[in-house]
Amino acid sequence: MIIDCHGHYTTAPGQLVAWRNTQIDAKGDRSRMAQPDGPVISDDVIRESLLGAQIRTQQERGIDLTIFSPRAAAMGQHIGDEAMSQQWSRICNDLIRRVCDLFPDHFAPVCQLPQSPGCKPEGVVPELRRCVEEMGFVGCNLNPDPAGGYWTDPPMTDPWWFPLYEVLEDLDVPAMIHVSGSCNPNFQYSGAHYINADTSVFMQILDSDLFERFPRLKFIIPHGGGAVPFHWGRYRGLAMDRGRKEPGQMMGQNMFFDTCVYHQPGINLMTEVVPVDNVHFASETYGAVRAVDPETGHQFDGTKRYIEASPHLTDADREKIFEGNARRVFTWLKLPA
Amino acid sequence: MIIDCHGHYTTAPGQLVAWRNTQIDAKGDRSRMAQPDGPVISDDVIRESLLGAQIRTQQERGIDLTIFSPRAAAMGQHIGDEAMSQQWSRICNDLIRRVCDLFPDHFAPVCQLPQSPGCKPEGVVPELRRCVEEMGFVGCNLNPDPAGGYWTDPPMTDPWWFPLYEVLEDLDVPAMIHVSGSCNPNFQYSGAHYINADTSVFMQILDSDLFERFPRLKFIIPHGGGAVPFHWGRYRGLAMDRGRKEPGQMMGQNMFFDTCVYHQPGINLMTEVVPVDNVHFASETYGAVRAVDPETGHQFDGTKRYIEASPHLTDADREKIFEGNARRVFTWLKLPA
Repeated sequence: MIIDCHGHYTTAPGQLVAWRNTQIDAKGDRSRMAQPDGPVISDDVIRESLLGAQIRTQQERGIDLTIFSPRAAAMGQHIGDEAMSQQWSRICNDLIRRVCDLFPDHFAPVCQLPQSPGCKPEGVVPELRRCVEEMGFVGCNLNPDPAGGYWTDPPMTDPWWFPLYEVLEDLDVPAMIHVSGSCNPNFQYSGAHYINADTSVFMQILDSDLFERFPRLKFIIPHGGGAVPFHWGRYRGLAMDRGRKEPGQMMGQNMFFDTCVYHQPGINLMTEVVPVDNVHFASETYGAVRAVDPETGHQFDGTKRYIEASPHLTDADREKIFEGNARRVFTWLKLPA
Repeated sequence: MIIDCHGHYTTAPGQLVAWRNTQIDAKGDRSRMAQPDGPVISDDVIRESLLGAQIRTQQERGIDLTIFSPRAAAMGQHIGDEAMSQQWSRICNDLIRRVCDLFPDHFAPVCQLPQSPGCKPEGVVPELRRCVEEMGFVGCNLNPDPAGGYWTDPPMTDPWWFPLYEVLEDLDVPAMIHVSGSCNPNFQYSGAHYINADTSVFMQILDSDLFERFPRLKFIIPHGGGAVPFHWGRYRGLAMDRGRKEPGQMMGQNMFFDTCVYHQPGINLMTEVVPVDNVHFASETYGAVRAVDPETGHQFDGTKRYIEASPHLTDADREKIFEGNARRVFTWLKLPA
């Protein structure tokens, strides 16, 4: 079985985007919105948005199941206030639940969280509990920079975040550390802000005792761990210079990288240096990159073939990356018979 | 000949650090400083600071010449105002000139620039011209985030920077794009802020026409280009999706990565995907990482051995990386007979 741990509903119906634009224009004032409780979207429209897109690609590539969440770039926790973020998150998460009800063999749900800059992380707990306990979500996306590129909230190793971590441990759900869009013109979102966030949070945790404090916390750092595998020696050395655990040891049972690295040499490097137990298969399809590589004739984001071709993996390793590691980390995942 | 294009005076005498602390405490008020024009440092103290450190390492590793600049983490353009930055830069640059006069066979000078958050980049031109035209400096370090981790100035593709670029073209000196310390607790400086800056500026330029506007501009992106080689497929795809030049084509005669990547698999990847004409040998010694890798028995930052062992390079390629590319880009470099 092949489980893709990182997919977003990037092809969500236009009604969802239109509703969000209305909410932003109304600054969240329900009296100024024609449909304050969310857009009306039929099951057929949802089906159409997926059958020719993510589901077709799954079938073409031989992916069995995608762990599926709202579009990351559209979470937009930096837009408006906490109440707006709560309303928007609830609507996005409800839609993901409907996707997974319509296609239970294709998708398992992950929620976005109603964070807001400067607001305490425990404010997201009601929505997190609703999604996991009432609606069977298997994980969440946690934004390390709700300020959208200005990084004005504390680092993820700060006690600021600890009340949320207690709940994540209690629920036993993993969090993918994923920023949203960037309103800082220095950071293009998919080529800089995403990758920088991955790198930054890794370094925060490397230089901390976070996983000693929260031994059952599980973080997935997407996009191959940002810059980390490429600079694996730098991080090993920095850890030694600081008297910290080496990166592989620090990651242990707590931190995982996905395989959203869109070329063969990148996946070769990653599978050479990162412990195989800490790598989850993913492609983020449809996501950041849609082009076909003229050198291979395949889409850049068809990462399965890179895993298959990596010279550093045994068949048993590939089974872990494609399935075993996800089964172990996503304990709420109900797999199709 | 082996030229290391990225070294900082990280072992500068304590008097320099003490002077800077005094300047910061006095908020730049010369009347409150015992030595307002800079610390008194003897030639012998300078010699001692280098002979057992950078020069010994050069000799042990077989490096002939290091292109040498003030300590990047101490540039601190975010501290104080433009006048303080000007005074501090002048003192640091004068000290680098003395280093190169004392050891002309070992070091060639690169200057720091008196940037300050929110201040127009052309404000650094007098110090840049002084260093290049009067003191024979061969390049400069340009900080893409004078705000020290808050990224509040415009991206490097914004016309904000163009007056400085005109002068860089006029002088024909390359700029290494190098941030300084980070006052944002989200970004540890050497494991996150440096790497993020490299990645961010690369992406800014990939999605711009900067090098069409300034065809003689030369930027060196240090630390192996941040995350870029690891995500080479992502950047190729992003460029195609946006109708931009592919990364290798964009880099052309204008952008170069150094080899400050501290393990063999990282250098292997880099030399597999990045055009060899765009790679400069560097180790940033003494720099971010000082530990010895217990797996190899060698220091992580001894990058020369990784270049020598890369399976993707011919002897002619290695000559370019070690010497030829630096001779071509640093046109002001006077090499020892």
